[in-house]
Amino acid sequence: MNINVISLFPPMFEGVFNQSIMKKAQDKNAVKLNVVDLREFADNKRQVDDYPFGGGAGMVLKPEPMFNAVESLVTDKKPRVILMCPQGERFTQKKAEELAQEEELIFICGHYEGYDERIREHLVTDEISIGDFVLTGGELAAMTVIDSVVRLLPGVLGNADSSIKDSFSTGMLEHPQYTRPADFRGWQVPAVLTSGNHGKVDQWREEQALKRTLERRPDLLEHIQLTKQQQKIIDSLKNTSNNQE
Amino acid sequence: MNINVISLFPPMFEGVFNQSIMKKAQDKNAVKLNVVDLREFADNKRQVDDYPFGGGAGMVLKPEPMFNAVESLVTDKKPRVILMCPQGERFTQKKAEELAQEEELIFICGHYEGYDERIREHLVTDEISIGDFVLTGGELAAMTVIDSVVRLLPGVLGNADSSIKDSFSTGMLEHPQYTRPADFRGWQVPAVLTSGNHGKVDQWREEQALKRTLERRPDLLEHIQLTKQQQKIIDSLKNTSNNQE
Repeated sequence: MNINVISLFPPMFEGVFNQSIMKKAQDKNAVKLNVVDLREFADNKRQVDDYPFGGGAGMVLKPEPMFNAVESLVTDKKPRVILMCPQGERFTQKKAEELAQEEELIFICGHYEGYDERIREHLVTDEISIGDFVLTGGELAAMTVIDSVVRLLPGVLGNADSSIKDSFSTGMLEHPQYTRPADFRGWQVPAVLTSGNHGKVDQWREEQALKRTLERRPDLLEHIQLTKQQQKIIDSLKNTSNNQE
Repeated sequence: MNINVISLFPPMFEGVFNQSIMKKAQDKNAVKLNVVDLREFADNKRQVDDYPFGGGAGMVLKPEPMFNAVESLVTDKKPRVILMCPQGERFTQKKAEELAQEEELIFICGHYEGYDERIREHLVTDEISIGDFVLTGGELAAMTVIDSVVRLLPGVLGNADSSIKDSFSTGMLEHPQYTRPADFRGWQVPAVLTSGNHGKVDQWREEQALKRTLERRPDLLEHIQLTKQQQKIIDSLKNTSNNQE
């Protein structure tokens, strides 16, 4: 996959793109990451922003440099042009899986007060938000989306299981995990996990995942097709919690 | 504000913490950012993770190094210890405003398959998620939260207005912005914005913000107290849209 990013602050990406899984993914040629400086596409004065028409605080990114930058990166494959902005579609694991199917992506990062509306209207194909909060720019949002997409590309994660059992990939939150020591400061690992009984371990984990999802994110359960066994566990958990009230 | 971060990949933070507003905030002494390497708190073998009890794919972060790291950073101020994880409370602008009131914060970044449950049970005070998607680690999530908190600290943004009129700070999405040129490739700026009539500009912007919020995020309107004038605009927008159907 080829991923291009347009930003006013290319050095922001250096740390994230050169560590851990992102570095491995590039070493394995699963992805090619390219960050271009929006300023290089501005006119002689290197001016990328200007005052908003109608007045108001802050500066607005001008249309020409962004159109020029995107057009320099567009290939025959007509890549999707993704604007990171708080007004966009909420990013989810499903969207990550969808984007991981693409051959090329272009990410646009706004910064400061915003960008000329004509960029949104005539240049971008997707607007994505990572949540209801305000960032100083789209860079961290773009890195977040890119990280979640790249780890899904074939061959990137060492263990093929790893991306399957994560939270959200199953539609549920993950069960608790424990590692050594079995006793840490008097806090013990649940006995079932050291029992050696794999059937019981699997059953405990499924119950815990359901319990945690029910407690913290009951909304997620509405979107998955529960097995009869899972429904039985949930009914039993709900009864226990009712009896405790 | 003092912000400490515990991570297996400190270099991931370098680009983001040394650019743009984050750099300015440190230059102005509004925030002190400190990233510590979890590995320095591991035993001789520098082993920070181990196999999960009960079997399964991937590695789990051990409790001791994380407890040691956090305890090395805790001061008399008893800072909140924030675990970034997909199972946590959803991060919002309101949470950013809450965290911006603190004097000290400690962020824990998981990585790989997860962390020993005793970290969650006995060490952390807050669990925060930035959304329903899976990342290779908590680092990008921590940077996202830190960025949104730091820009709210006094003196960080140049123009005091800037953090007030953003999307979500008003409870609504932001109105469209335009800058020069007034005509770009035949696409014109709305005439009202170049009219010089400030009353009309303000009115247009309010209508556009309401319209956009109604179209894209009607859920946000349920949480704000609309003025009579705003309610009138919304009723009129709803009528127009009904007539078009």
